[in-house]
Amino acid sequence: MNITHAYAAQDAKSKLAPFEYQPRELRDHDVQIEVLFCGVCHSDLHQARNEWKNTVFPVVPGHEIVGRVTAVGGHAKKYKVGDLVGVGCLVDSCRTCDSCKEDLEQFCENGFTGTYNGKDRVTGDITYGGYSTQVVVTEDFVLRIPENLDPAAAAPLLCAGITTFSPLNHWGVGPGKKVGIVGLGGLGHMGVKIAHAMGAHVVLFTTSPSKIEDGKRLGADEVVISKDPEQMAAQANSFDFILNTVAAQHDLNPFINLLRRDGTMTLVGVPEHDHPAPQVVNLVFKRRSVAGSLIGGIKETQEMLDFCGKHNITSDIEMIKIDEINEAYERMLKSDVKYRFVIDIDSLRS
Amino acid sequence: MNITHAYAAQDAKSKLAPFEYQPRELRDHDVQIEVLFCGVCHSDLHQARNEWKNTVFPVVPGHEIVGRVTAVGGHAKKYKVGDLVGVGCLVDSCRTCDSCKEDLEQFCENGFTGTYNGKDRVTGDITYGGYSTQVVVTEDFVLRIPENLDPAAAAPLLCAGITTFSPLNHWGVGPGKKVGIVGLGGLGHMGVKIAHAMGAHVVLFTTSPSKIEDGKRLGADEVVISKDPEQMAAQANSFDFILNTVAAQHDLNPFINLLRRDGTMTLVGVPEHDHPAPQVVNLVFKRRSVAGSLIGGIKETQEMLDFCGKHNITSDIEMIKIDEINEAYERMLKSDVKYRFVIDIDSLRS
Repeated sequence: MNITHAYAAQDAKSKLAPFEYQPRELRDHDVQIEVLFCGVCHSDLHQARNEWKNTVFPVVPGHEIVGRVTAVGGHAKKYKVGDLVGVGCLVDSCRTCDSCKEDLEQFCENGFTGTYNGKDRVTGDITYGGYSTQVVVTEDFVLRIPENLDPAAAAPLLCAGITTFSPLNHWGVGPGKKVGIVGLGGLGHMGVKIAHAMGAHVVLFTTSPSKIEDGKRLGADEVVISKDPEQMAAQANSFDFILNTVAAQHDLNPFINLLRRDGTMTLVGVPEHDHPAPQVVNLVFKRRSVAGSLIGGIKETQEMLDFCGKHNITSDIEMIKIDEINEAYERMLKSDVKYRFVIDIDSLRS
Repeated sequence: MNITHAYAAQDAKSKLAPFEYQPRELRDHDVQIEVLFCGVCHSDLHQARNEWKNTVFPVVPGHEIVGRVTAVGGHAKKYKVGDLVGVGCLVDSCRTCDSCKEDLEQFCENGFTGTYNGKDRVTGDITYGGYSTQVVVTEDFVLRIPENLDPAAAAPLLCAGITTFSPLNHWGVGPGKKVGIVGLGGLGHMGVKIAHAMGAHVVLFTTSPSKIEDGKRLGADEVVISKDPEQMAAQANSFDFILNTVAAQHDLNPFINLLRRDGTMTLVGVPEHDHPAPQVVNLVFKRRSVAGSLIGGIKETQEMLDFCGKHNITSDIEMIKIDEINEAYERMLKSDVKYRFVIDIDSLRS
């Protein structure tokens, strides 16, 4: 098999730089994928800089992968050469625990295998992600990308898309529901698009008046400046569900107070330092819930992709070449991207 | 109508002392009740001492009321003289909002009328509670007490019973579910009994090794000393639902970590100072929820009473005379009661 050209961080302090590795030989159920595009997730930066203290170097980030199948293993049945496919955050799981059996591999009781910085369940080798010319993934963890979608703009669906679709779907968002999306970044802009396509009344919460117009363009019925107590008070007790995509530490109480009785606010961002304590009285007096949600399982990720295909939903992206990745990280830290960087992986081949 | 003999606090600093008042004339749908027994809830003490800063003095506490019907209004159809009845935390609500229409009067959008320190919806007069020889309540907020239950021990069902039954019921506790009850006080001991009768596997969490035996007697399948990290670790990721009855400020994270994927911990105690912030990562990685719950609606309170009648469940009580109420408050502050004080209201008549 051809050598794989990639970009890797060699340690927590160094920039990403060219790296080569030999991919594994195809196993019976493997799919070999020529990577076309890879989205840039905030997790990539966390792992490259070892901010979660679990990075094995060198690390090749990237878990928003879109590509074409170039070969399949002897018993692989699901995909054929030429298929447009995707790979998200998971490339394997134990497949035997309750969560795996319920198609919730992201909660695998024995730990899922991450697309990068994971440990291959057969060899124990560290997995390398999508900042690579090719990846080899077992067919059960490969997704089908609807051919009507722009493949570059579809890449972020594999993480940002499923991370927002899954809680919106799990908590029953749809017509007749009023849904809040907190934050308009990589996750939030997908949340707005998906909740709108699900038929809900969508309210975007942002701290930036400059994002009002964009929020409406993306599908928000209303945009509320969350720093404005008057605007917030006007929304009190009215939301069935709030999807909070903000990872920065912030006060949850002003948002909890916007939930109706029995409403839920679900957090998908993990802050470095936990948010201040929610007031118990705000939960008790309306039977409200605060919950968390993590990406999604493979079955639900395919449902999300099919949903996005049907509704023609992709991410708003800014395409970069691989040698712009370090600059892109710096800009991502300043939220200077609308709304997701995607690497044109052809730039790794030249 | 006869004068009502009661005990009231005249201001936040004074002890409860004898007080008399004239009850309202019976309205068409009213039920006049001779109070036999009244449970002593921690809320009574909070209100008597104006710890929630909303007490109108004089205040006559008491919302765990059991008595006999002595008269009914001209159009009252639900109860007849001699019926054994109860009154809980609510004596009225708007009856027109969504929550009221869904039999969730405790969440009345226009504010329910509390059994004491509430404001009568007709006259605007402040309501007086069950530390009284009689109460007059509109029939829709009067409950039927199963005749097979000891009426004194049934009194705490009206608040402690429904406060624990409602979340256990709402979150689907039953056979095949593993349920934790945190704290063995007035609420917790009802939670253990009810969850056990619902058919769940019940684990009591307590900080006191002295409560192990009692916990098992009350229906717990296991008792875990929550200060012991080893015992706690052995229960990790195993609970479908945890009912947390502890109002004192404490760290929620050790309990959140005991929830399975999609598990919920529901708080029914409101601490004076909020609990330390829950770790978001513990919610996200298992899609767990932290929720609140407040007493229960009238329909569900009757279901709870019927359930307790069927399973012969009452509170473990210590009976007191009305002139022991101030001492009982002091003992309640020290958790020195197994597990609920109930006032023999005959002591107000002599």
